[in-house]
Amino acid sequence: MSVPELTDVHPAWLPPEAFRAVGTRRTLVCGDGPLVRTALAEVTQACRRYGGAVRHLPAATGDVVAAAVAAGDGPSDLVLALSGTGPADGDGFLLARAAGVTLVSADDPAGLLHGLFHVVRLGASAFGADRPAEQHRSAMRRRMVNHWDNVVAHPVMGQVERGYSGGSLFWQDGTLRTDLTRVTAYARLLASCGINAVSVNNVNVHATEASLLTDRLGDVAAIAARFRPYGIRVHLSVSFAAPVTLGGLSTADPHDAQVRAWWARITARVYETIPDFGGYVVKADSEGQPGPFAYGRSHADGANVLADALAPFGGVVDWRAFVYNHHQDWRDRSTDRARAAHDHFAPLDGEFRDNVHLQVKHGPIDFQTREPVSPVFAAMPATRIAVELQVTQEYTGQQRHVCYLAPMWSEVLGFDPWDGEGPSVADVAAVGGGLVAVSNAGADRFWTGHPLAQANLYAFGRLAWSPWLDPATILDEWIDLTFVPSATADPELLRRTLHALMDHSWQTYEQYTAPLGIGFMVRPGDHYGPDVDGYEYSPWGTYHFADRDGIGVDRTQASGTGFTGQYPPGWAAAYESLDRCPDELLLFFHHVPYDHVLHSGVTVIQHIYDTHFAGVEAVAEAQQRWERLPAGLVDPALHTRVAERLDEQLRCAREWRDQINTYFFRKSGVPDACGRRIF
Amino acid sequence: MSVPELTDVHPAWLPPEAFRAVGTRRTLVCGDGPLVRTALAEVTQACRRYGGAVRHLPAATGDVVAAAVAAGDGPSDLVLALSGTGPADGDGFLLARAAGVTLVSADDPAGLLHGLFHVVRLGASAFGADRPAEQHRSAMRRRMVNHWDNVVAHPVMGQVERGYSGGSLFWQDGTLRTDLTRVTAYARLLASCGINAVSVNNVNVHATEASLLTDRLGDVAAIAARFRPYGIRVHLSVSFAAPVTLGGLSTADPHDAQVRAWWARITARVYETIPDFGGYVVKADSEGQPGPFAYGRSHADGANVLADALAPFGGVVDWRAFVYNHHQDWRDRSTDRARAAHDHFAPLDGEFRDNVHLQVKHGPIDFQTREPVSPVFAAMPATRIAVELQVTQEYTGQQRHVCYLAPMWSEVLGFDPWDGEGPSVADVAAVGGGLVAVSNAGADRFWTGHPLAQANLYAFGRLAWSPWLDPATILDEWIDLTFVPSATADPELLRRTLHALMDHSWQTYEQYTAPLGIGFMVRPGDHYGPDVDGYEYSPWGTYHFADRDGIGVDRTQASGTGFTGQYPPGWAAAYESLDRCPDELLLFFHHVPYDHVLHSGVTVIQHIYDTHFAGVEAVAEAQQRWERLPAGLVDPALHTRVAERLDEQLRCAREWRDQINTYFFRKSGVPDACGRRIF
Repeated sequence: MSVPELTDVHPAWLPPEAFRAVGTRRTLVCGDGPLVRTALAEVTQACRRYGGAVRHLPAATGDVVAAAVAAGDGPSDLVLALSGTGPADGDGFLLARAAGVTLVSADDPAGLLHGLFHVVRLGASAFGADRPAEQHRSAMRRRMVNHWDNVVAHPVMGQVERGYSGGSLFWQDGTLRTDLTRVTAYARLLASCGINAVSVNNVNVHATEASLLTDRLGDVAAIAARFRPYGIRVHLSVSFAAPVTLGGLSTADPHDAQVRAWWARITARVYETIPDFGGYVVKADSEGQPGPFAYGRSHADGANVLADALAPFGGVVDWRAFVYNHHQDWRDRSTDRARAAHDHFAPLDGEFRDNVHLQVKHGPIDFQTREPVSPVFAAMPATRIAVELQVTQEYTGQQRHVCYLAPMWSEVLGFDPWDGEGPSVADVAAVGGGLVAVSNAGADRFWTGHPLAQANLYAFGRLAWSPWLDPATILDEWIDLTFVPSATADPELLRRTLHALMDHSWQTYEQYTAPLGIGFMVRPGDHYGPDVDGYEYSPWGTYHFADRDGIGVDRTQASGTGFTGQYPPGWAAAYESLDRCPDELLLFFHHVPYDHVLHSGVTVIQHIYDTHFAGVEAVAEAQQRWERLPAGLVDPALHTRVAERLDEQLRCAREWRDQINTYFFRKSGVPDACGRRIF
Repeated sequence: MSVPELTDVHPAWLPPEAFRAVGTRRTLVCGDGPLVRTALAEVTQACRRYGGAVRHLPAATGDVVAAAVAAGDGPSDLVLALSGTGPADGDGFLLARAAGVTLVSADDPAGLLHGLFHVVRLGASAFGADRPAEQHRSAMRRRMVNHWDNVVAHPVMGQVERGYSGGSLFWQDGTLRTDLTRVTAYARLLASCGINAVSVNNVNVHATEASLLTDRLGDVAAIAARFRPYGIRVHLSVSFAAPVTLGGLSTADPHDAQVRAWWARITARVYETIPDFGGYVVKADSEGQPGPFAYGRSHADGANVLADALAPFGGVVDWRAFVYNHHQDWRDRSTDRARAAHDHFAPLDGEFRDNVHLQVKHGPIDFQTREPVSPVFAAMPATRIAVELQVTQEYTGQQRHVCYLAPMWSEVLGFDPWDGEGPSVADVAAVGGGLVAVSNAGADRFWTGHPLAQANLYAFGRLAWSPWLDPATILDEWIDLTFVPSATADPELLRRTLHALMDHSWQTYEQYTAPLGIGFMVRPGDHYGPDVDGYEYSPWGTYHFADRDGIGVDRTQASGTGFTGQYPPGWAAAYESLDRCPDELLLFFHHVPYDHVLHSGVTVIQHIYDTHFAGVEAVAEAQQRWERLPAGLVDPALHTRVAERLDEQLRCAREWRDQINTYFFRKSGVPDACGRRIF
């Protein structure tokens, strides 16, 4: 095991300097096993760079903890000890400091690794004042990223579907990359923020990608070998039609005995090759992917056949709930895509096997900048639900715009569908399948296209571990790791600048794009930039119904699609009520005239104008702040990359502002109360 | 020379049956040379099939004509005689019938071939009553089709840019097709309707295609060898930057001596290889193509350097006038794309060499269903202008919709910019570079995707020969050649059906798409189907400016962009006047409220509703008519293909109707006076 040192690739939040506090000290590593050796390698490399020392006692376990602490100013500043007191029931760790020794102990080797990275995050402060024993536990057992990577570049979607960070980290030109050093570096980044599962191919499973399950399983094994030392299990997106397309059967009917046998046999082979394989991710009966509907079976039937095949090996199925009619007729106002996941899945509650995670997008539509939280989270108490977020910025600026998403995710995770009478979204994920997100990382030298988008990947991992963490605190962690150690000139100026650029960037993005929760005013296909009517007459079920008098989708039970009724009573009533519906979701739930007065006191049309002017001003200010940053505070290449993207963000934000304002001015005829220029 | 007989390819308007009248008779061919031998081969093949006879007197010329006619009921029913009385000054022919002999004589061998095809068109009636000598002359010396074919399939545009008929007839997968039999068949079809020039690659010249001028010239020669027997010269689209990209020079400046020398040398090489090479087609400074602007030179400078290189060999430059700013800011209402060609080129009148044809699109924008005729045709009396039409149905239904375009072209050709004080558009083309069109033919088994779209290619050739021909008469010619000989059951029913489907299909298409000359409400990129705002906020300069009160582009001199002032006084005044502007172009020239009353007596908004309902009804009726056609009247495969396309046309027309009506109802708030359903 050696820690990769890449040249020409930005180190993200694990630059060598982040390890200075550990690397300058004396560390004792107690215990053995692959993950312990990974921790040892990390410390060893840090010490080699910064002059510290490391000792390894492979056999030491149990009360070495007490002994080490009791040793006082003994030979170690840091003790990393596998306590080994019993079977691991979590990958948390204990952190304490007394008598000059900082102790990290863990039952599970993965916990030891997490503890080490926690010490790295703390930096010098891990070695300051005494601290009483703190128990660190992950809120979610499973913290997963999905890669929508294609092995063969798709003619329209490219190598990575909705990828804005160059090519795939795994695949290139139809084959596995020959040099996987960067996969190890990626594993290290993921593990350091708490991620412990990764799926390595697109949920839209094309022909070549389907064969990863069979002929190309060796490729998956090679990737798994890179993730394993960091405690990350590899999952695979599979096609529900695989028994037909790969197995040569005449059906993929989940009730068919041959189909069940095929999945069992194939899955056993997977585990022979990859004993710690995580499981399958499935997008079925969705946007053209095959599924159980073709055989008149339910999604529970479909998921369970895979679950049964995986169960003997401890694997899980992530079965996506993103099922809706994507051939909708725009003329048909009775069909409401927002209802689809609940309509399809809520009736199936209790029918899924225990090792099925029903993977539900956080909003009822599709990762828009502002959506209500999906009602499915309150509707399936007898189902293990995984909450799906989108780290890749498909609808939030595609990593050309700064959009720090942790505040959105915090809102989602903290949402309380039952008004205190039931679990929060974070609780649902914690008892269910955890948190899952579409990754934003690729072969780009900054990993994420926009360097500041690294913070989203980091924050996702941290929120999956601790959903109650404050987004600004997470941002500080990320800034400290990524920038501060090298920013000797004026680290506080840099920190202030980054907070100014990022803290409210989600709200800023919301301001200059689609207003008040209406969503989907993006260019069809690529989803970048404005096109107000782009989806208005499409089959995708995403409409705004703007006319000369008003805008919005009536989703009430009283007069609309009835979607509000999918929520528990409190929220159902709140969303149903024009008076109580939150401003930011008004147009998601109600069709209102342009002169409807918001709780904020302004009319809908004036709100549209005001927010669009304000959003552009905020971007212009961010751009100027970044320009004013003194040279030397950050890597010049990174500074240039961010500056270029801010230029594009400003251009694009102006385009949004002018198109949205012009569109609604032309339609409503209402002039801006402030007399600003609308074209 | 042998006439190709293709299986699995529809014979278009030259089925064997079309040659029955000739093939059952006795023909004497007098004269010699390649084109005479082509005529001989055509007659020979027909006689072989139908039992007639053919004699060839290679040396017979001059008064063989009189002798043959004088011979009375001699051995020949048809005499095709090269008169050879002097240098050919046109490719026309003389047709007469007396004493049982039909005589075709021509000075030019191409005329003889045209005469033979004319006899084929006449069929049995060529051998009926006596007819006094008729002189047939082409109105245009040059009758050309442009192919927008790529050698290497373009990632977005495919093998044929704006091609709706399968692959290219010439190119496949990056190379020349190995079997060029079909190119010969195509040459025969083109020659039979009068076309005598063809360019074989896209005007957007990509890297591989650029090298057709140099490394791949052999491919062009191979194609030329297929067209030559039918009297068709081959032209090449070239890149203005070729001296740099192919020649390795540091500049393509037309004033640079090395550049001039390079073009001269390269052109000489082309003529060594292809002695009857036609010349170059150039799209310069247009939509990203390189041009003289980069060197501060005018388009006359640019065109003349190529013209000088071609002049010694009799070649011509077709220099396209399609030059405009395609990075326009939609916010900028002072820039008017309609003005661009006139603004750029009119000041250069008289500066172009005689062997430059300035190729001008028929309308000022881009092949929309309804545009005014370009004012350039009246603005450059000292320039040889070629009138460019678009046979490929980019904006008129993409060969999925029936849209017989001859009526549009007739209107264009008959347009009289000077109100009788100057030449018509047909006159301008006749004294200039003739008529040019983008071809609609491809490797599809029916040549044109939609079998009925064959009529457009046929009609283009016929109008280039005789611009005053009635479109319905041309359609009859095409029906007689294509269908009637084989439709023994009820040819008149078939004829009536085809006229019902096609005669007014252009107006029908106009009815259900963009109204009143406003244009460009198509889906961006592919240009198929409706997207009312698709180009409204784009850089392409094609806007409708619809708001809640009205719609249209003010192009008047009084208050608009001043485009009307580019016309001679009569039309300038007519278009300028809201009262005199023709209804069908109202929104092209004026921005009016929805309640503006048209000359037809209805308001603009009601006209929009009425025409959209009527257009769909016309398509539905056409579909039913076709369905009712008794089996056996046409080839079943052709019937099926047309039926499928009519289904799609009806679906798409409904989509147009509903989107357009809904869009304008939402915007205007005006209900349909007839209470029909608007969504």
